[in-house]
Amino acid sequence: MNNNSAAIWIWYPGDYEIWLANQMNNCRTERGAFFPHFWKMDSHYVLVEFSKKIDVGEAEEIEIAVEGTFNIKLDGKLQFGMPKKFTLPTGKHSLNIKVWNQAAVPAIFVNGKTVKTDNSWKVTYEDKEWIDESGKASDTSATIYMAAEGWTNFDAADKLPSQYKLATEEHKAVTVTDVQGGQLIDFGKETFGFLRFHALSGKGKINMYYGESKEEAMDTEFCETLDQLSVDGNKVTDEALAITSSTEEIYTLANSKAFRYVYVTKDASVDFKELNMLYEFKPEKQRGSFKCNDEEVNQIWNVGAYTMQLTTRECFIDGIKRDRWIWSGDAYQSYLMNYYLNFDSQTVKNTSWALRGKDPVTSHTNTILDYTFFWFLGIYDYYLYTGDEHFISQVYPRMQTLMDYVLGRTNKNGMVEGLTGDWVFVDWADGFMDKHGELSFEQVLFAKSLETMALCAKLANNTADQSKYEKLAANLRAKLLPAFWNKTKKALVHNRLNDVQQSQITRYSNMFAVFFNYLSPEQKQEIKKSVLMNDSVMKISTPYMRFYELEALCAMGEQKQVMKEMKDYWGGMIREGATSFWEKYNPTDKGAQHLAMYGRPYGKSLCHAWGASPIYLLGKYYLGIQPIKAGYSEFAIAPNLGGLKWIEGTVPTPNGEIKLFMDTKTIKVTATEGKGYLTFVSKSKPKASKGTVEKIDADKYRLLIDGKEEVEVNYK
Amino acid sequence: MNNNSAAIWIWYPGDYEIWLANQMNNCRTERGAFFPHFWKMDSHYVLVEFSKKIDVGEAEEIEIAVEGTFNIKLDGKLQFGMPKKFTLPTGKHSLNIKVWNQAAVPAIFVNGKTVKTDNSWKVTYEDKEWIDESGKASDTSATIYMAAEGWTNFDAADKLPSQYKLATEEHKAVTVTDVQGGQLIDFGKETFGFLRFHALSGKGKINMYYGESKEEAMDTEFCETLDQLSVDGNKVTDEALAITSSTEEIYTLANSKAFRYVYVTKDASVDFKELNMLYEFKPEKQRGSFKCNDEEVNQIWNVGAYTMQLTTRECFIDGIKRDRWIWSGDAYQSYLMNYYLNFDSQTVKNTSWALRGKDPVTSHTNTILDYTFFWFLGIYDYYLYTGDEHFISQVYPRMQTLMDYVLGRTNKNGMVEGLTGDWVFVDWADGFMDKHGELSFEQVLFAKSLETMALCAKLANNTADQSKYEKLAANLRAKLLPAFWNKTKKALVHNRLNDVQQSQITRYSNMFAVFFNYLSPEQKQEIKKSVLMNDSVMKISTPYMRFYELEALCAMGEQKQVMKEMKDYWGGMIREGATSFWEKYNPTDKGAQHLAMYGRPYGKSLCHAWGASPIYLLGKYYLGIQPIKAGYSEFAIAPNLGGLKWIEGTVPTPNGEIKLFMDTKTIKVTATEGKGYLTFVSKSKPKASKGTVEKIDADKYRLLIDGKEEVEVNYK
Repeated sequence: MNNNSAAIWIWYPGDYEIWLANQMNNCRTERGAFFPHFWKMDSHYVLVEFSKKIDVGEAEEIEIAVEGTFNIKLDGKLQFGMPKKFTLPTGKHSLNIKVWNQAAVPAIFVNGKTVKTDNSWKVTYEDKEWIDESGKASDTSATIYMAAEGWTNFDAADKLPSQYKLATEEHKAVTVTDVQGGQLIDFGKETFGFLRFHALSGKGKINMYYGESKEEAMDTEFCETLDQLSVDGNKVTDEALAITSSTEEIYTLANSKAFRYVYVTKDASVDFKELNMLYEFKPEKQRGSFKCNDEEVNQIWNVGAYTMQLTTRECFIDGIKRDRWIWSGDAYQSYLMNYYLNFDSQTVKNTSWALRGKDPVTSHTNTILDYTFFWFLGIYDYYLYTGDEHFISQVYPRMQTLMDYVLGRTNKNGMVEGLTGDWVFVDWADGFMDKHGELSFEQVLFAKSLETMALCAKLANNTADQSKYEKLAANLRAKLLPAFWNKTKKALVHNRLNDVQQSQITRYSNMFAVFFNYLSPEQKQEIKKSVLMNDSVMKISTPYMRFYELEALCAMGEQKQVMKEMKDYWGGMIREGATSFWEKYNPTDKGAQHLAMYGRPYGKSLCHAWGASPIYLLGKYYLGIQPIKAGYSEFAIAPNLGGLKWIEGTVPTPNGEIKLFMDTKTIKVTATEGKGYLTFVSKSKPKASKGTVEKIDADKYRLLIDGKEEVEVNYK
Repeated sequence: MNNNSAAIWIWYPGDYEIWLANQMNNCRTERGAFFPHFWKMDSHYVLVEFSKKIDVGEAEEIEIAVEGTFNIKLDGKLQFGMPKKFTLPTGKHSLNIKVWNQAAVPAIFVNGKTVKTDNSWKVTYEDKEWIDESGKASDTSATIYMAAEGWTNFDAADKLPSQYKLATEEHKAVTVTDVQGGQLIDFGKETFGFLRFHALSGKGKINMYYGESKEEAMDTEFCETLDQLSVDGNKVTDEALAITSSTEEIYTLANSKAFRYVYVTKDASVDFKELNMLYEFKPEKQRGSFKCNDEEVNQIWNVGAYTMQLTTRECFIDGIKRDRWIWSGDAYQSYLMNYYLNFDSQTVKNTSWALRGKDPVTSHTNTILDYTFFWFLGIYDYYLYTGDEHFISQVYPRMQTLMDYVLGRTNKNGMVEGLTGDWVFVDWADGFMDKHGELSFEQVLFAKSLETMALCAKLANNTADQSKYEKLAANLRAKLLPAFWNKTKKALVHNRLNDVQQSQITRYSNMFAVFFNYLSPEQKQEIKKSVLMNDSVMKISTPYMRFYELEALCAMGEQKQVMKEMKDYWGGMIREGATSFWEKYNPTDKGAQHLAMYGRPYGKSLCHAWGASPIYLLGKYYLGIQPIKAGYSEFAIAPNLGGLKWIEGTVPTPNGEIKLFMDTKTIKVTATEGKGYLTFVSKSKPKASKGTVEKIDADKYRLLIDGKEEVEVNYK
């Protein structure tokens, strides 16, 4: 809820987020061609009614700003024209504003002494209010009204939502080298923005070839993105490239691109003095931090944070060079990292709205079966980390319709299989993984999604749904082990075909079953040995699934092992020159092999959000901080050095933070909101500066943290 | 299907029609306030892919025009930029064009020697074509492709669908009178268009009060529509009224209005020389005609045709002054009249698409229960009159989802009742008609709608649906008489409450049951006496339901009686000065009483499409021409003088016409397509110029008309 007293622009929940995501998703290009996505692009309601019951103590003039054609109705009576000011008479009134906008989202901003737009206003796309022959208005008690949605940054009449832009700042090139008749310009690290020419003159063409690597920029035939500029005098004539900012001689390209290098060739008849870039970014307050004694780990955390900075935009996108799209499985990881970095709840909500889109549901999220489930999981985590019940009640109707879609496609066992048109993704391991029949991985995610539905039904006060989904979840949970657990292999098998267990074992379902707590402690230990630490089981080569693999190991206390793998894998990318983390990394690849993917020499994204998982792992499993109850009202702190000498850092909470320092003798904790247990291992009885340390197991202790002061614990 | 060889602009079926209808529906104003409708306003798919498998004999350059941001893919490979020309290489290829447009409808126009856009192109809003890690494209066999839709008038690259406008021509005032310090301008008859000021000068305000009547225009406080213009020099400063056309001194208002009179007041400091209007209309070829010996009847037909001309626009609207909206029950009658006047199939399709909108269905059509059913009935008639199977297959998916909505709201008896938020309209007779429980009227329409579903399922080759809907229709049909027929009253009762017949008898269900042939011949005769010709049953005061009342009487051969009522009722309006037919007419009203409705002194519309029913009745039941099989492949001609001395006229067919002349001795028929029987009554054996007259009953004869020549029959 919007708790401050400032007026904000408001709209129908999800509509602006979907509209903005369309603008963003449609920025993808491939070698100069527009490249939109292949699933349904939804749109906003073009006609929306906003309303509020008001009670003004004295006549009050309100300022009205609207995006669209609109009318104002006071107590059922239409007012003349589309006024910018309007005086509300004393007393109780119904104020209704109805807006039509096809190109952008119907939105209003009302600002008076007491009457202001915020999310206490109601909105509907269909008021169903008609007038009968006698002039009597209809019964609108069945009309569905939602709470309006708005962002706190749109807090003035002239801050139009349709005009929203990310921030920019000009960055200069680090080196400029003449190569093969062109210029190779290096901006020093992976970056994202608009090329900007200074002192452009003459007449002719300029070609720009972008590269995340030097190899890509120099390969004019195969680089993934490029631009071409036609200059005539100081006028740019190529209409495909509009000019967004210009003085006498500065030209900024219209579409931002991802690159570290740009290779520029041009006709001799055209010239420019300098090529800079306008770095485009979402201003974020970095509220989380991590430091330790190992500089390589610190560097991994920093490169992860920078990867997140580049991929946190209007929404969380996958990677900045190629797709620039919102992908549910990718976004789900961004959410988790975000809770340990910026705690930017708005961007989580934006991304969830955008991914879900509008009804009717005509495909899985991004067409991918597993991505539908990650969407539900993202809602679950959002509530757990933020405690924001309001969002759950707003989004719940779309959770229902998406789950209806899933349930409408289950087989005779009540399980999901990929049907024609469904992408069963799991991970990039095509050719090594069977995608037919009932995949255990999909059923595990499906079960968790049903549990999420039950939880959210409860929050939305829908007890019928709650019991329906609890039953469905319990039924599916009960089938998981009988269907997939193989006693000989001591693992969940990858899939079943025609009710018969297949022989392949993959890591995917096993690791999710571990941290979803779907297994007995014995089974978890068996899986650790038979799958997670078993080199004969197909290795994971994407940071995407490594995220969960390492999380599963951490959840079983293998922080030392994970630290080693983190340094090998993410450290490995850095040693290969990475300034942001990659879409996929195979340590045995050499040179340009690292750049290829999808059958294209530079198909791989070198800045991919899912590459930044150390942010999450270090916060949740080394600093050891996580919410136990919604919004950190209760938290757990179980720090683990994982072989390091000391660690320190901050984990943001909705309205505060938890700070932790740990070395081999001391733990210091400050939690500015919530309460919860600090749990740790000590060989002898520890001492705390405040509170009573309880022994809970051999060498295992806990201490209740409840209060804003720092608590220091001495242990051995 | 588009059978000519010209390239046309194409789009996703229904999308442009919905978009255009939004523009049109949103032109309603009430005393200067924007007045959009109260049901969901749908929108187009913002991202659409067009595709075509082509085979070119020699390399061919195509011209490409697109509304939106787009890409071109040839054989799966994206092409650079957004070219206006593109050369297709020799051979077989896949050509795909993907377009994004938020503000207007994604549409393309491709024109080459052999490759041209038409409705053989496929479209989808979701191609589900992704690329796996190895670069392999997905299986898109489950992707839903529709045939593209386009209008034949958009046949050049520069005829952009988004720029479509109705035609205009300047009309001058008939009289200008100075009254009470202002000018009362009379345009001589009901009209529709944009006011246009000539030689506007000075600085100040001009107020324009519109009236369909003199009383309304002069009543500045209560007239339904008005405009205000702020002039500064020769600049108009009021931004609510944009200028659409201007030379040095001509100002045309931005929004068209309906009126006969305009009362203009102004500041002394502002002046103009002349106030004209730009008449706005849809150019139509009037293919139907009717004439007879009675000049009053001819005038009724002509005023009806003018009423239709004014209300036939981008779609068929209800009335031109107030709503200017598409209402399903109103449109249904416009369709029927249109088949006897312009046979403008495109506008029927446009209106059907616009009324139906997009999924999900969240309310009845226009929120009105009966209007949902009239939508289905309109589809049924469209097929019967035009034989256009292609449209049925295009619209069938939306028929399914609308019927699903209806079926999801039936009660334990499988019948419909008005639930909260459903408008049970029937007719304007609020206060005199019970709208609770199961109305017989709604069930009769529901049964016919289910029959329509079964028919269209068959046309769409959906045999499962066909049998499902046949069963549902038969079940409901079987319940109608047991539920509603009252043997004592010899009529269908108005409604049932809690399974109990209520006592009220109204005309509505009885007359529909007659011409839907849901009754035995005996029951029909009983109803004629007990209801239709029974003055103690509540009279109908809207032309809307008089349409069906008179149709029911005509269907039972009461043309003479109907002719009398037509002359009384429609003749009555003309005697009251009507230049177009009204929304409602009560012959006992006096003076300004004729103008009031909805509790407002000028609430009534004086140009309402549903007022024009004589067009339909005279064509179908006097000229006696109607299709028996789809598209007039078989027709029936059963002319009836109805007390007149002679009648003559033309009824259009999809690609031809049927001409008929009849007096008391002769019938002349020319049918340029189809075949069918001419049926007539003669006291003695008639003679025909061609073919063999068969006797089919006492005094009843028939003659097969099959051939394009005129056939003359002499009878007594």
